[in-house]
Amino acid sequence: MTLLADLLSTVFERRYRLSFGTGGDNRPVEDLAEALVGSTAETSGLTLAAQILDRYAAMDDTEKLAFFRHLATAMNIDPVTVKATLDAYEAEPSKATYRAFVHAAEPKRHEFIKRLNHVPGATEALVRMRADLLQLGAGEDALQALDLDFRHLFVSWFNRGFLVLRPINWESPALILEKIIAYEAVHSIDSWEDLRRRVEPSDRRCFAFFHPAMPDEPLIFVEVALTKDVPGSVQSLLTEDRQPISDQTAKTAVFYSISNCQPGLAGISFGNSLIKQVAADLAFELPGLKTFVTLSPIPGLMGWAMQSEIEVDPSDALSVRQLAAHYLLEAKRGDGQPHDPVARFHLGNGAIIHAVHAEADTSQKGMAQSAGAMVNYLYDLSRTAQNHEDYASKRKIAATNGVRTAASAFPTGA
Amino acid sequence: MTLLADLLSTVFERRYRLSFGTGGDNRPVEDLAEALVGSTAETSGLTLAAQILDRYAAMDDTEKLAFFRHLATAMNIDPVTVKATLDAYEAEPSKATYRAFVHAAEPKRHEFIKRLNHVPGATEALVRMRADLLQLGAGEDALQALDLDFRHLFVSWFNRGFLVLRPINWESPALILEKIIAYEAVHSIDSWEDLRRRVEPSDRRCFAFFHPAMPDEPLIFVEVALTKDVPGSVQSLLTEDRQPISDQTAKTAVFYSISNCQPGLAGISFGNSLIKQVAADLAFELPGLKTFVTLSPIPGLMGWAMQSEIEVDPSDALSVRQLAAHYLLEAKRGDGQPHDPVARFHLGNGAIIHAVHAEADTSQKGMAQSAGAMVNYLYDLSRTAQNHEDYASKRKIAATNGVRTAASAFPTGA
Amino acid sequence: MTLLADLLSTVFERRYRLSFGTGGDNRPVEDLAEALVGSTAETSGLTLAAQILDRYAAMDDTEKLAFFRHLATAMNIDPVTVKATLDAYEAEPSKATYRAFVHAAEPKRHEFIKRLNHVPGATEALVRMRADLLQLGAGEDALQALDLDFRHLFVSWFNRGFLVLRPINWESPALILEKIIAYEAVHSIDSWEDLRRRVEPSDRRCFAFFHPAMPDEPLIFVEVALTKDVPGSVQSLLTEDRQPISDQTAKTAVFYSISNCQPGLAGISFGNSLIKQVAADLAFELPGLKTFVTLSPIPGLMGWAMQSEIEVDPSDALSVRQLAAHYLLEAKRGDGQPHDPVARFHLGNGAIIHAVHAEADTSQKGMAQSAGAMVNYLYDLSRTAQNHEDYASKRKIAATNGVRTAASAFPTGA
Amino acid sequence: MTLLADLLSTVFERRYRLSFGTGGDNRPVEDLAEALVGSTAETSGLTLAAQILDRYAAMDDTEKLAFFRHLATAMNIDPVTVKATLDAYEAEPSKATYRAFVHAAEPKRHEFIKRLNHVPGATEALVRMRADLLQLGAGEDALQALDLDFRHLFVSWFNRGFLVLRPINWESPALILEKIIAYEAVHSIDSWEDLRRRVEPSDRRCFAFFHPAMPDEPLIFVEVALTKDVPGSVQSLLTEDRQPISDQTAKTAVFYSISNCQPGLAGISFGNSLIKQVAADLAFELPGLKTFVTLSPIPGLMGWAMQSEIEVDPSDALSVRQLAAHYLLEAKRGDGQPHDPVARFHLGNGAIIHAVHAEADTSQKGMAQSAGAMVNYLYDLSRTAQNHEDYASKRKIAATNGVRTAASAFPTGA
Repeated sequence: MTLLADLLSTVFERRYRLSFGTGGDNRPVEDLAEALVGSTAETSGLTLAAQILDRYAAMDDTEKLAFFRHLATAMNIDPVTVKATLDAYEAEPSKATYRAFVHAAEPKRHEFIKRLNHVPGATEALVRMRADLLQLGAGEDALQALDLDFRHLFVSWFNRGFLVLRPINWESPALILEKIIAYEAVHSIDSWEDLRRRVEPSDRRCFAFFHPAMPDEPLIFVEVALTKDVPGSVQSLLTEDRQPISDQTAKTAVFYSISNCQPGLAGISFGNSLIKQVAADLAFELPGLKTFVTLSPIPGLMGWAMQSEIEVDPSDALSVRQLAAHYLLEAKRGDGQPHDPVARFHLGNGAIIHAVHAEADTSQKGMAQSAGAMVNYLYDLSRTAQNHEDYASKRKIAATNGVRTAASAFPTGA
Repeated sequence: MTLLADLLSTVFERRYRLSFGTGGDNRPVEDLAEALVGSTAETSGLTLAAQILDRYAAMDDTEKLAFFRHLATAMNIDPVTVKATLDAYEAEPSKATYRAFVHAAEPKRHEFIKRLNHVPGATEALVRMRADLLQLGAGEDALQALDLDFRHLFVSWFNRGFLVLRPINWESPALILEKIIAYEAVHSIDSWEDLRRRVEPSDRRCFAFFHPAMPDEPLIFVEVALTKDVPGSVQSLLTEDRQPISDQTAKTAVFYSISNCQPGLAGISFGNSLIKQVAADLAFELPGLKTFVTLSPIPGLMGWAMQSEIEVDPSDALSVRQLAAHYLLEAKRGDGQPHDPVARFHLGNGAIIHAVHAEADTSQKGMAQSAGAMVNYLYDLSRTAQNHEDYASKRKIAATNGVRTAASAFPTGA
Repeated sequence: MTLLADLLSTVFERRYRLSFGTGGDNRPVEDLAEALVGSTAETSGLTLAAQILDRYAAMDDTEKLAFFRHLATAMNIDPVTVKATLDAYEAEPSKATYRAFVHAAEPKRHEFIKRLNHVPGATEALVRMRADLLQLGAGEDALQALDLDFRHLFVSWFNRGFLVLRPINWESPALILEKIIAYEAVHSIDSWEDLRRRVEPSDRRCFAFFHPAMPDEPLIFVEVALTKDVPGSVQSLLTEDRQPISDQTAKTAVFYSISNCQPGLAGISFGNSLIKQVAADLAFELPGLKTFVTLSPIPGLMGWAMQSEIEVDPSDALSVRQLAAHYLLEAKRGDGQPHDPVARFHLGNGAIIHAVHAEADTSQKGMAQSAGAMVNYLYDLSRTAQNHEDYASKRKIAATNGVRTAASAFPTGA
Repeated sequence: MTLLADLLSTVFERRYRLSFGTGGDNRPVEDLAEALVGSTAETSGLTLAAQILDRYAAMDDTEKLAFFRHLATAMNIDPVTVKATLDAYEAEPSKATYRAFVHAAEPKRHEFIKRLNHVPGATEALVRMRADLLQLGAGEDALQALDLDFRHLFVSWFNRGFLVLRPINWESPALILEKIIAYEAVHSIDSWEDLRRRVEPSDRRCFAFFHPAMPDEPLIFVEVALTKDVPGSVQSLLTEDRQPISDQTAKTAVFYSISNCQPGLAGISFGNSLIKQVAADLAFELPGLKTFVTLSPIPGLMGWAMQSEIEVDPSDALSVRQLAAHYLLEAKRGDGQPHDPVARFHLGNGAIIHAVHAEADTSQKGMAQSAGAMVNYLYDLSRTAQNHEDYASKRKIAATNGVRTAASAFPTGA
C-alpha cells in the first residue's frame, strides 16, 4: 500500500505541503475560517486551510466544541436568502436564478470543508474531525445538523465508484496489517501470529475497501474462510492447529467477520458492496466455489430474551437453536423490521437465513450476547435482488425450511 | 499509468463490471432513471446504472437532448416542498427538519448522477456526458440549470485534494502520450517525433493532473522548458536542431503551454494549482532554478486592435511590442478586468507581466491572433499572494518598468 | 517498464553511480584493467570499473580492437600453470588443489568482466561491448576465444531463471515501444500507427523477455495474432482495414514474428522458451485457444532453388507450394539437418510442419527469398518433446499428410 | 516487495511452473540428473529440472549426501580430457581448441546447476541446497570441491551489478519484516513491537540487498540509527522509551547491526558494498549527516583474553576499555591480521577505529563475549581507499589517537 501511497500522493505533494501551514497567523481560528471561505486565491487559501487543520489538531475537546458551534451557527444557511432566491427562481427559472438558489441553499460550511480538503492529506483529517463531531455533538441539534453536512459531502466523496478493493494478506505492509488488528470488531485478533492465521493460509482471504486519498487507511474489511462445508462454529474456523486446505478444493466461502474501520464514516454504508464484490471476485478466481455464506453473530438475542422474560439455558443446545431461529424470524422492532441489527443488514442485502447453530461461539462475548448461537446468512447472487425487494416492500424474511422448522418448534408459551 | 490503473481499478472491478449491464431491460431510459433513484438495494441499482450508461452511449444527439430534458424537468427541485421544509426548519431548527430541507433542496438528479457513478469506470462516462450537455444545452435555461448540478458535483469530486500530479515523459505509456498529442491546444504537436522533443530531452518537462478514477485520462497538463535566460520566442524554444542543456545548469523554468484536456470539466479550474505545484516541485528538485516564467500567447490582441480600428504592421517589431504592452495594461472588459483572457488567468493567479516580445510566435496562428507578439508572466511565489490580492480587490496589474515604458510609448492617437 | 526500472535500479543506484567514474586517472586503459583485476577493495574497484567503461564508450574502432587484443592476450590462461595445478589436483584431489585448478583454468578476463559489471548499469554496456567484439573480432582466433568467455558469462547471467516475461502493449512506455519498432526483424514496422495495429487491438498480443539489470531493453519479442483459423497469408493478417475480433472468440494463436533485439547476446537462445511460455500463458488466459501455430518465412528457399538450378515461376501458386513443401522436407545441409534455418529452429523445438502456402508474403522481401511462400509450424505442447526427440536423434521431420502430399507432387526432375 | 515479486515473477511464470514438475518419472534422481545435462530440448529439460528439485526437497540428510556425492564424482572434470584439450590449445590456439578446453575444464555439475535454475523459483532452492551442502559436506574433500562450483556460480549470479538496495520500513510487507526478525544476528529482535522500534521512527533506517530472482528474501541488511553524537552504548540506542529526533537534525549515521540472511551464500561478501552504498545514499538524502560510524561488537575479546590468561574485571570500565583498545590494535592471527573478525571486516573496508567503549553492551551476550565493550569504526568515504590500501599491503591499522592512548595505557604485564 506504501507503493500505492507513493503513486498517489507522490513526493510532489509532500514537498508542496511543506511550503504551507508553517505560517504564524495569530488570528482566532474562527477568523481564519471566515477568511478561508472568503478567499479568492488558491494559494492563500491553501495556507489558511493548512493552518486551520494544524490548529484543530492541537485543540482539546472544549475548543473543538466551540469550533464546531461556530461552524454550526456562523456558517449556516440564511432562511431569508434561501426563500428570496427560491421565489426568484419560481418566478423565472433560469440559469442565473437557479444558481443563486443553489448557492443560498448550501451552507457556507460546505465550501469551508471542501477548501480544507485542498490540503494534501486533509481527507483523513476531515474524517477524524467528523468522528470528533459525532462524539462531542451528540444530542445537540445544531451540531447534528452540521454533521449532516459532513455526511452529505462524505457520501459524495466516498462514492462507491471511487473506492478501491484490495486484498490484505501476509504480503501487505505492516502499516496496514496493524490497522486490521486494531479495527477487527467481531472476533478480536490478539497478536501478529493470530493475524497471520487469518491472512496467510491458502484457505483464508481478507479484502478491504480503500479511498485513493487515504491509501494507508482501510475503510472496511471482510475476513473470509474457504471451506468444504458450511461451518457451524467460529471456534473450529479459527482454531490454531487446524490443517489448511488448498483453495482449489474449497466449495464454500464463509464471510465470518466484517469490520468498519472509520468512526468518521459512520452512516455511509460500504458493507453491502464489499460482500457482493468479494463474492463476485472469488467466484471468478475459484470456479469451485459454489456457496457464499456468512457465519454471523446474533448480538441482540440475549437482550431480547431478557426483555421478553424468556429463560435461556445455554447448555441446552437444542432449545438455544430453536430460540435463535424463533428470534430471527419473529422478533421485530416497532417498524416491523427484525430486532437483530445484523439480521437487518444481511436481509436488507437480500441474503437468506440459511442455518442456525448452538455452541457456535463459545467465547465470553458469544455466550453473553447470544448464548453461543450463531447464524449463516446465504448470499445467492441470482436471488439477492428479489429477496431484497420482498424484504423492502413486504418485510418478508427469506429462510430455509430447516430454520423455519426450528423456529416453530420453539415453545412460545402458549 | 497502466500500472496505476491496475492498482486502482484492479481486475476485481473489471470482473464485477461484467456481471452487470448486460441485462435486457426494455423499459424506456426515463423509467430506468426513475427506478435508479428509487432503488433501495445496491445490486439492482448497479444493474440499472450500468444499463443507463450503456443506453446513453448508444444515443444520438436528439435522444441525448430528450434524456437531458427529462433530467432537467422530472428530476428538478419542487419549490413547494422546499418552501415547506424551510418553514419547518425555521420554526424549529433540528436535525430532522434540517435533513428534510437538505433533501428537498437537492434535486433528484443529484442522486441520479451519484448512483450512475457507482458503476466502475462511470466517472469518465459522466465527464463525457457533461461535455455533451454543454454542447447540446447551450442557450436552454433548464439544461443550463442541469449543468450547474453536474458542475456542482464535479467540483466536489475533482477537489484539489483528490488530484494526483504525475510527470509525463518518454517513459510514460503510449496510451497517455497519444492524449498529450491530441489535447495540446497552444502549440500543436504534429508527430511522435515532435512529442519526443517536448518530453525526452534533459531540459524539457511535462506534468499533468490525474484523478484516480480516470487514471488514463490527463485532466490538464503543462509543458516546461528549462533554460538559462527568459526566452522571447517560442520558435527558438521548439526548434528541432537545438542543443539540449543539462537540467543542472538551467536557471529558468518556462511554462510555455498549458492545455485543458476534458471539455466535460469546463469551468473547474486546475491551472492555477498546476503551475504553482510544478513550480514548487521544480524548485525543490533543481535548486539552480531561480526564475519561473511563462511564454504566453496574447490571443485577444488582433481582435481588439481591429475593433479599436488600430492598424498593425506585423513587420514593425517595435510598434507591435508597444501595442502589445499597451493592450495588456490598458485594454479592459466592461467589468474592469483585462480584455485578454490569458492575461486575466495569470494576473488572477498573482503573476506579474514581465516582458513583451514581438516576432515571438511567427506561426500562422501566432501572426493571426497577435501579430507574432508574446508575453512572459513571471511567478514569484513570495509575491503571488499580494499581487493576487491587489488585482482582485483593486484591479491593479503588476508589471515591470520595461513593460510599462513600452506601453506608454504606444501612440494612443492623441 | 520505467516503474520496474525504478524499482530495480532505484535512485540509490543512480546517486551511487554519480560518486564514481568522474575521476581523472590518466593511466592507459590497459593499466586500469590490470589494476581492476588486481584490486582488493571494492570501492577502488568500482571507481576503476566506471572509468574503464567511460573510456571504452569514447573509443573508436581501432582503439577498441587494441583493447580487445589486450584482454585476449594479457588476460588469457597460462597453460603451464593450468597443467601444474591439474597435475597437483590429479595427484591429490582436495578442496585446495581443486580451487587452484579452477582459478588457473579461468582466464583473468573473466574476473575482469565480472568486476566491470559491479558498476550500476554496466550489464547493458557489456552486452554492447560484446556486439562490438563480434563485429571487430571476426576471423581473428584470439578475439573469438575472448568472445567465448563473454558468451560463457552471458549464458550464466542470462539464465532462463532470471528472465522476466512482460506483455508489450499500447500501455507500455514509449521508450520500450520505440525499441520494438527498431528491432522488428521479420515484417518491419514503419510508423507508430503501424505499431499500434500490432499491439493495441483485442486480437493482437506481443510479449518480450527482459533481464532485471536491463529493464528498458527487450531481449527478444514475439508478435501474436489471435484468429479463428490458421492463416495462410501475412498480408491478410497485417492489413490496415481489417476488423479485429474479440479475444474470447479466437481459436488460434499465430506467432507471426520473432525478433532478437541484442546483437551482443548472439548465440544465447531465448526463442524456444519464449514461444512455449507465451503459448502456455495464452492457453491459460484464453481457454478457447486450441491451436498454436506460426506463420513463418522460408528464407532459404530461393537461394537453394538457384543453387539447385530449379526454375521458379512465382505466379504459379501450385508449383511454388509444391516446391516449398519439397524444400522443407528434403533439402538438407551436410549434417543432415534441413537447409532452411527457420525450419531448423522450429523443428528443433519439436514443432510440426503444418501447412505450406503460396502467395503468402507478397512483399518485395517475401518474393525475393521464397517466391512469396510461407509455412505454418504447429506447436502441440503435448507432442513437442517426442517430436524434438525424434528430430534430434533420427533427423525425423514431423509434417502433416497435406504437406507430404504437396512435397511428393513436386516434379524432382526424374 | 510483493508488488516487486509480481512484476518480476509474474503470473505467467507461476502458471508455467504448474505445467512442469508434476510428472511421475520413476527413475533414480541420479538418472534424472544425467538426463538433464544430456538433454537438448529445453522443454523436457524444464520438466526434468522441476522433478529433480521436487525430489531433492523431499530428501532426508542421508539421501542428500548421496546426491551430493554423485554430483561430486560422476559430474567431475576428467583430468585426461582436460589435459588433452589443453595440449591441443597450446599447440594451436584457435576458437575451436579453446572452446574444447573450456568445455573440458568445466565440470558437468556446472551445467547441471545452471539447468536446474531454468525452473521459475529455482534460485532460492539452489541457495538452500548449498546451505545443506555446506553443513553436510564439511570435512569431505570432494564435497568441498563441489561447493567451490556452487560458490563460483553464485559469485557470478549474485554479482553486485544485479543486486537491488531496498529500504525496509514499517510499510514493508509482513513477509519481509518477519525475515528481518528471524535473521537479525547481532542484537536480537524479540517481537513485532521491538521490530517497529527499529524501522518506524524518524531516526531509524534499515536497508537490505535483494536479488531479483528471490524478491522476498533479503540477502543482507543493515540497521542504522540517526543521532546527534557518536553513541557509546547500544542500550541507549535501543531503549524503549527514548524520544526520536527528526532525521533533519541528525548529524551522525550509526550502523549498529549488519546481518547476513542466507547461509547458502556464505563466502560471497555483500557487507562492504552495503555499508558504502547506504552511506552514500544517506549523505545524499540528509545533507546534515557528517559522520558515518558503526557501533560494533568485539566478539573475539574474551576468548582471546582467556587464551592469553588475562584476567578481566567487567566492572572496571577503565581497564576494560584499555584492554579492548589493546586487543583491537595488537592481538593478531598467524597471518598478521587482527584477531577479531569484525575488526578484520571493517579495517579491510578501509574504516578507522574511532573509539572504544566499556559498558556499551550489557546484555548477557555482550558481557560474555567482550565484557560489555564495543567499538566505533568510522567510515570516511574520502579516506577508505587509502586506509584499505595501507591495511591490505602493510597490515597498517587506522585508529584515532584516543584509541591508541587507551591501548598503550593497557598494562602488558611487563
